[in-house]
Amino acid sequence: MADDTVSSIIKKLAEKSWRLAAAESCTAGLVADLMASVPGASKVFWGSYVTYSIESKTSMLGVDPDLISRHGAVSEACARAMSSGACQKSGVQCGVSVTGLAGPDGDGSGLPVGTVWIAVTISGSGTSAREYRYTGSRNTIRRAAAEDALRELYNRIR
Amino acid sequence: MADDTVSSIIKKLAEKSWRLAAAESCTAGLVADLMASVPGASKVFWGSYVTYSIESKTSMLGVDPDLISRHGAVSEACARAMSSGACQKSGVQCGVSVTGLAGPDGDGSGLPVGTVWIAVTISGSGTSAREYRYTGSRNTIRRAAAEDALRELYNRIR
Repeated sequence: MADDTVSSIIKKLAEKSWRLAAAESCTAGLVADLMASVPGASKVFWGSYVTYSIESKTSMLGVDPDLISRHGAVSEACARAMSSGACQKSGVQCGVSVTGLAGPDGDGSGLPVGTVWIAVTISGSGTSAREYRYTGSRNTIRRAAAEDALRELYNRIR
Repeated sequence: MADDTVSSIIKKLAEKSWRLAAAESCTAGLVADLMASVPGASKVFWGSYVTYSIESKTSMLGVDPDLISRHGAVSEACARAMSSGACQKSGVQCGVSVTGLAGPDGDGSGLPVGTVWIAVTISGSGTSAREYRYTGSRNTIRRAAAEDALRELYNRIR
């Protein structure tokens, strides 16, 4: 990803006096890494909940375990609960979440490897979510998903 | 970093039926990314608290704000509180933390850019901490610190 997108996000959040909290499953810190790779990020980047297990989604973000049982961890419902949970738990204005199947194996749900849900929450203006389907290696999928998460975020705040 | 180190960590944690929680400041998700880049990580990797602000260190990890006021966010005391906080908040057996100054600017404390504290907590056997001094660019420092954090962890569990 061009650092330009991250720089634009930092500038736009700073203009609004907003901060960002991320909630990451398959990307496991890559959204946070992309943000922090640009100097000045600390002005607007609060932190990221890297929830790599069902238990951490519940413990860190307050995602209802029944929601995960009903819909699966890779689902629109879980992505929405993760981004809104990131806002609620942190108290900041913007949340972005990523949950997906990076492979190489599936999760037994029948969803194809490469399925990723991304959600963005803006306090007071709700949560949007979109499904992506990627191909490629585990780490190709993870990186593409992190970059698209930041693009989705920028599209909501620009 | 050789994926070999991460694979060895995954194998050793699985043998002990232990899981890992990370607490990352300057590395901002890179420790989590290194763990998750190896398939099989989900068996042992619980998640990471990416605490990129004073508020997130307090909110996510329970680090005492007075401790940060007294010692600074880049300090042995803060690194120890972060790794033990990661264990306590997650309920898992192993915690690893990284807090440092990646630059390009200092934090006004007089500490040189490149100063990083790494701590490892094993439930029931306490917390160890070590100071590192790196040179290089912001992202060179961040990556080196993430790799050393995993080496410190491996040295405690092997």
